[in-house]
Amino acid sequence: MKEEVFRQFADIEIKEMSPGFFSKLIHTENNTINFIDIKAGSDSPIHSHPHHQCAFVLKGQFEMTVGEETQILDTGKFVVIPGGVPHGGRAVTDCTLLDIFSPGREDFKY
Amino acid sequence: MKEEVFRQFADIEIKEMSPGFFSKLIHTENNTINFIDIKAGSDSPIHSHPHHQCAFVLKGQFEMTVGEETQILDTGKFVVIPGGVPHGGRAVTDCTLLDIFSPGREDFKY
Repeated sequence: MKEEVFRQFADIEIKEMSPGFFSKLIHTENNTINFIDIKAGSDSPIHSHPHHQCAFVLKGQFEMTVGEETQILDTGKFVVIPGGVPHGGRAVTDCTLLDIFSPGREDFKY
Repeated sequence: MKEEVFRQFADIEIKEMSPGFFSKLIHTENNTINFIDIKAGSDSPIHSHPHHQCAFVLKGQFEMTVGEETQILDTGKFVVIPGGVPHGGRAVTDCTLLDIFSPGREDFKY
């Protein structure tokens, strides 16, 4: 099937990837782009994957730990996480995160 | 120099890539991520490049043409543009766009 160029967020299924993390996933040629609405207090335990990841907060605050360092992300601060580096975090407020993975997350295509 | 994991938007230089298009560029391993504040009425003439591109509107409205089709992008609608496909557009209102290119735009590293 030919992939549409113009797309609507309303047409993307919401997946609760872990408790309190509600994702809309876009898989492209070389990336997975993940818009996530997260409930305050929900957390993502420390984990790692070979994919390079950037995380941007579009709304609210998210406490992010990468390696030994923990900082609060907001619309002014973001992270660029090399592949294989342990990271995790917790929503300080209800927030919206944008994760960009490279290469794409085949493990998210379920 | 070791690249920082935690970064601030305030530390990124603003580049006026074309008249009315004010970019903050993030170059990663496989992507260029471009947060662009655009003045209403500014336009990007039809062009193409081999890079795959996704464009998301974070604020406002942007009229996008891809190939023969023109649609208004807003926070509900986005585009996924394969490499080599002609595209361009115009800011309907003051708006903020997020472009994700793959692979990275070496030509933007000036």
